[in-house]
Amino acid sequence: MNTTKTEQWDGLVLGASLATLDGTDGYGEIIDGALGWHDGRLSYVGPRAGLPDDPATLAREVIEADGWITPGLVDCHTHVVFAGDRAREFEQRLQGASYEDIARAGGGILSTVRAVREADEAELLRQSLPRAKALLADGAITLEIKSGYGLDFDNERKMLRVARQVGEILGITVRTTYLAAHALPPEFRDRPDAYIDAVVDWLPLLHAEGLVDAVDAFCEGIGFDPAQTRRVFEAARALGLPVKLHADQLSDLGGAGLVAEFNGLSADHIEYSSDAGIRAMAGSGAVAVLLPGAFHVLRETKLPPLDALREHGVPMAVATDCNPGTAPLLSLRQAMQLACTHFRLTPEQALRGATVHAARALGLQDRGVLRVGMRADFVQWQVGHPAELGYWLGGTLAASRYANGRRVG
Amino acid sequence: MNTTKTEQWDGLVLGASLATLDGTDGYGEIIDGALGWHDGRLSYVGPRAGLPDDPATLAREVIEADGWITPGLVDCHTHVVFAGDRAREFEQRLQGASYEDIARAGGGILSTVRAVREADEAELLRQSLPRAKALLADGAITLEIKSGYGLDFDNERKMLRVARQVGEILGITVRTTYLAAHALPPEFRDRPDAYIDAVVDWLPLLHAEGLVDAVDAFCEGIGFDPAQTRRVFEAARALGLPVKLHADQLSDLGGAGLVAEFNGLSADHIEYSSDAGIRAMAGSGAVAVLLPGAFHVLRETKLPPLDALREHGVPMAVATDCNPGTAPLLSLRQAMQLACTHFRLTPEQALRGATVHAARALGLQDRGVLRVGMRADFVQWQVGHPAELGYWLGGTLAASRYANGRRVG
Ligand SMILES: [Zn+2]
Ligand SMILES: [Zn+2]
Repeated sequence: MNTTKTEQWDGLVLGASLATLDGTDGYGEIIDGALGWHDGRLSYVGPRAGLPDDPATLAREVIEADGWITPGLVDCHTHVVFAGDRAREFEQRLQGASYEDIARAGGGILSTVRAVREADEAELLRQSLPRAKALLADGAITLEIKSGYGLDFDNERKMLRVARQVGEILGITVRTTYLAAHALPPEFRDRPDAYIDAVVDWLPLLHAEGLVDAVDAFCEGIGFDPAQTRRVFEAARALGLPVKLHADQLSDLGGAGLVAEFNGLSADHIEYSSDAGIRAMAGSGAVAVLLPGAFHVLRETKLPPLDALREHGVPMAVATDCNPGTAPLLSLRQAMQLACTHFRLTPEQALRGATVHAARALGLQDRGVLRVGMRADFVQWQVGHPAELGYWLGGTLAASRYANGRRVG
Repeated sequence: MNTTKTEQWDGLVLGASLATLDGTDGYGEIIDGALGWHDGRLSYVGPRAGLPDDPATLAREVIEADGWITPGLVDCHTHVVFAGDRAREFEQRLQGASYEDIARAGGGILSTVRAVREADEAELLRQSLPRAKALLADGAITLEIKSGYGLDFDNERKMLRVARQVGEILGITVRTTYLAAHALPPEFRDRPDAYIDAVVDWLPLLHAEGLVDAVDAFCEGIGFDPAQTRRVFEAARALGLPVKLHADQLSDLGGAGLVAEFNGLSADHIEYSSDAGIRAMAGSGAVAVLLPGAFHVLRETKLPPLDALREHGVPMAVATDCNPGTAPLLSLRQAMQLACTHFRLTPEQALRGATVHAARALGLQDRGVLRVGMRADFVQWQVGHPAELGYWLGGTLAASRYANGRRVG
């Protein structure tokens, strides 16, 4: 029996089918399955028929369910902590305004920076929490949350503190990422290297407060150049912090290769990454994080190098990139749908991208599949087949959600 | 005072801003507004400051709210009543299977027909209701629901009866559409004219049972030809029933012109409609129903003739087309987002398309705007601006919904 039973379990769900994702491909389907857990870890993953005749005695709580159970989704790239609202920019762009028009009128990323700086910590939490709740409601049991709209010490710190609070309030894992190198704040105009000095100085202070799990940057013509990015990565390495990168989204600056050089967790976006960059990622074990939300709303046509990623065996994660300007996604399932439609992933690949590979992109080895000993993070869905998770837009398909063996959301 | 107050109202919402959509363009914004209703009709639509000093006495129920209130959304083209699930076909197509492969393997529309025929009325309702609930949850207070997966008398009747039950259970308006001319059932293989004979014979019987509000057909190379469509429309006209049409989706068969000739409510899809067809629609007052969900998931590139529609002043509605094969939308807001992204509608145009113009596409003159005397169908949204309704994918932004003055959903 595929179990670690040594005492009565905390919980046992019976009757739902399981998409364990255990193994290298396929859903890992177990029809009429059973899932047991104890002390936050899975203690049984298998067919109901593999349990003793009277399973009611196995666990303190036994739940009869239907539909399908998958690993808890992992959203490995989000900017859900922000203030203000930029939907009107979306309207202005559709009315014909250019990005330059919008920036001149006070819009764009710096309008979000202003709104974040103006909000106190409680207000920033108040505005951000409903978005995190929406992601959780549709199955995301682990969230990565980036800073990057504060752009000074106090406000980056405020964002990271709010990110931590989101995790505590919702009872889920939040992995924080320091992204001060997201944009150049107005007070450093024309002095990007001086700003990078500051970014590098703030990092150990925030890390000492336990606020930083990883370090990210925006390496792009409109962001920071590879030399500046390298300085941020070196500061991270000095602290033993893993890196990741907004890489090669609009042009090939060699971001994928830079991630590989620093043994980074992931290179994200990577629409323009070269074959050499992809090969380097394969060698270092970095994950490619696909972000189809921005691709969709910006009507991009340059696809990520999907064939090269497959050929070189680079695992592909899928994330929302939830942010106010370019990725209006309040559900990881919607990113999966867009990955299927725009990037031709199959629903199974999209689901792996939002579980197995996304966990790896966060350096988390205890989740992303249903297997005895893994964290008891799972979602029960009201669907007839897990392919539906990559199919429907809208609706709430998650019926119940568990984080560390506790019901959440 | 913009009100018909003659007695105490049933309800009054204070404090939310209003997007009335009253007038020909703009949101009709009223900041810090108030909305009163009585006997299912709006009795006050205006600024809170336009009310007496003590509004608490004006209505039996007074609600303090925030966010924005819009007219109840109207989903004027859906196939939500169906059985079975075809998400695996989506997966098979992404794995490289052609439509022919899928049809040979027993998939495609006829697999839905089989599932509908096998389900009894209770089972068909059980499977369909969650989809209608999802549409309502995200703001659709009026639903059109088509038959068209039964394709024989008893099963078309069953579908229409279930559609009526959905409306009764949810407390919202459901407008039923007879779409027996959707596909050729196996028992009429190679005999489409004989099937149209049957479709025409069944219509008066179903109409006599009060099950039919309008009549539709699928006029296409893979559906029915214009002469067959005309026979269906003539049968509708003989009963005084309005017509609409799945028109010119994959090729120009003159469907838009046919709708105009019969003074139809709407021509739907119309990607391939000619300029002459659009001019004819403008002359007859027909609405163009845009269905961006199928466009999205099928990765179409042929846009509807948006410039011609605007030039000739044809009103554009937006609908989900919710169906198992080609339009995986469980939220009208998602159709609005796709209309903005793929068809370059502004969020305001998309919102008008899902309210004012959608109501017109169903021949309903009592809804779609917030104005005194209109039906008290409205939705309160947790958004900072109504442009957000065309922006976000996923999440549930509707905070409360009212149909005919009663809270629903
Ligand atoms: Zn990002
Ligand atoms: Zn349709």
